[in-house]
Amino acid sequence: MNKFGWQVRVYHEDVDTMGIVYYGNYLKFYERARTEFLRSLGFEQDDLMHDLNIMFVVKKVEMNYFLPARYNDRLWVTADVSSFRQSSFHFDQKVYREDAEGELLNQATIVVVCVDTKTVRPCPVPGIILKKLRDPG
Amino acid sequence: MNKFGWQVRVYHEDVDTMGIVYYGNYLKFYERARTEFLRSLGFEQDDLMHDLNIMFVVKKVEMNYFLPARYNDRLWVTADVSSFRQSSFHFDQKVYREDAEGELLNQATIVVVCVDTKTVRPCPVPGIILKKLRDPG
Amino acid sequence: MNKFGWQVRVYHEDVDTMGIVYYGNYLKFYERARTEFLRSLGFEQDDLMHDLNIMFVVKKVEMNYFLPARYNDRLWVTADVSSFRQSSFHFDQKVYREDAEGELLNQATIVVVCVDTKTVRPCPVPGIILKKLRDPG
Amino acid sequence: MNKFGWQVRVYHEDVDTMGIVYYGNYLKFYERARTEFLRSLGFEQDDLMHDLNIMFVVKKVEMNYFLPARYNDRLWVTADVSSFRQSSFHFDQKVYREDAEGELLNQATIVVVCVDTKTVRPCPVPGIILKKLRDPG
Repeated sequence: MNKFGWQVRVYHEDVDTMGIVYYGNYLKFYERARTEFLRSLGFEQDDLMHDLNIMFVVKKVEMNYFLPARYNDRLWVTADVSSFRQSSFHFDQKVYREDAEGELLNQATIVVVCVDTKTVRPCPVPGIILKKLRDPG
Repeated sequence: MNKFGWQVRVYHEDVDTMGIVYYGNYLKFYERARTEFLRSLGFEQDDLMHDLNIMFVVKKVEMNYFLPARYNDRLWVTADVSSFRQSSFHFDQKVYREDAEGELLNQATIVVVCVDTKTVRPCPVPGIILKKLRDPG
Repeated sequence: MNKFGWQVRVYHEDVDTMGIVYYGNYLKFYERARTEFLRSLGFEQDDLMHDLNIMFVVKKVEMNYFLPARYNDRLWVTADVSSFRQSSFHFDQKVYREDAEGELLNQATIVVVCVDTKTVRPCPVPGIILKKLRDPG
Repeated sequence: MNKFGWQVRVYHEDVDTMGIVYYGNYLKFYERARTEFLRSLGFEQDDLMHDLNIMFVVKKVEMNYFLPARYNDRLWVTADVSSFRQSSFHFDQKVYREDAEGELLNQATIVVVCVDTKTVRPCPVPGIILKKLRDPG
């Protein structure tokens, strides 16, 4: 089973006093990877918003900090759908130094809910997306 | 002539590797001060958007970095309208360490244009705002 | 039992496309509140770093998103030490709209470890801090 | 004459209420492009700091906003050294939509000073860097 990964470079904007990535910025990296994962399946989030009237909203984050990412590091950020229900996904996401064989720096479980942009309430994940998640090929 | 000022504290989120404020983040501080300046005159930007269909958009920034602001510094950020035309303002803004008598760390001239939210084109600054700018009392 | 709270205003820098606070930015708000909580007890983090050679590093975040904070909202962000061990604290933190009687928007449990700045390894929380946490008066 | 360019994708983290890139975030994009430009010449900024005891600090920014970059846009960000003196560079930088043939969205002139990390004062740009700037091949 392949996991989707996306390369992220650490710039000055990302780090704090200690020269390590600010603790809130991993959530930026994770979102970039989720966005690129959806794009890799053929889904652009602005199209989903305009055409299907849905958006994805984070409901819960559990994040563990193992080792700090540092200025100028090249990171490998994964996005793996570990489970899904009618209107939500569980993403298992990890940050490795350099590549998928590198040190594990950070891990998060992120629950994302599919929301109707008009009612701003949870709605079923469209079948076209579920189908791609089950069979990406 | 009084200048409007707003206190800003430097947190970990604001600094980079050197423990000094990231060069782009002064624009956040300047916007907070402009927002609070408008609020002090009685104008809330979300109301302006909904009631008058206008928003303020930055067209030009000239910014000089004299001395770095550091982690945990308390800053005094000014917002002074130095001139205005039919559809734009020139703000003269400064960042001082601690208060208006402190070291001058940064200075910017920022041109803000009044834009119609429907056409997304420049429009005249509403008279109610011009009047308050000329006579805040 | 009083909980410490800190007022945060939502500016343009904090929100995303939907006009709601970007999901990673609550961690900025929570850190501001923890910093101000420590300051209210008499501890400045730059002094702790220089004088006691310690810093506080986040090891774990569990965060629940109930309702979105919006542009221009005034928020009340709490920081409450729910438990502590030899070298770590558990913070229970919440974001309310307007004040402590307002709607609960977000809740997080954040584990913070005391780290020796020289060895970059966990070290006991200094007695002077534990004493203040037990008896703030 | 080739100009260096770097591709940047606009994510949720970058935009504000209007779904357009927050005015301060162009400075992040410009710094990514300058960093990658230096890397393309063989210079890593963390190595420059440790080996040559220098860092690059921004002294002045002049930035013009022509058209907004939007959520999910792919941008082409250039970094071109337009002139240099003993201890500083002038960068001419631009943001285009999609690629170098796309719409011009933003333009900035950014003055960067070479600083000695020990004295924190301007110092001459090392000859090895000047040589590469004059003759990248």
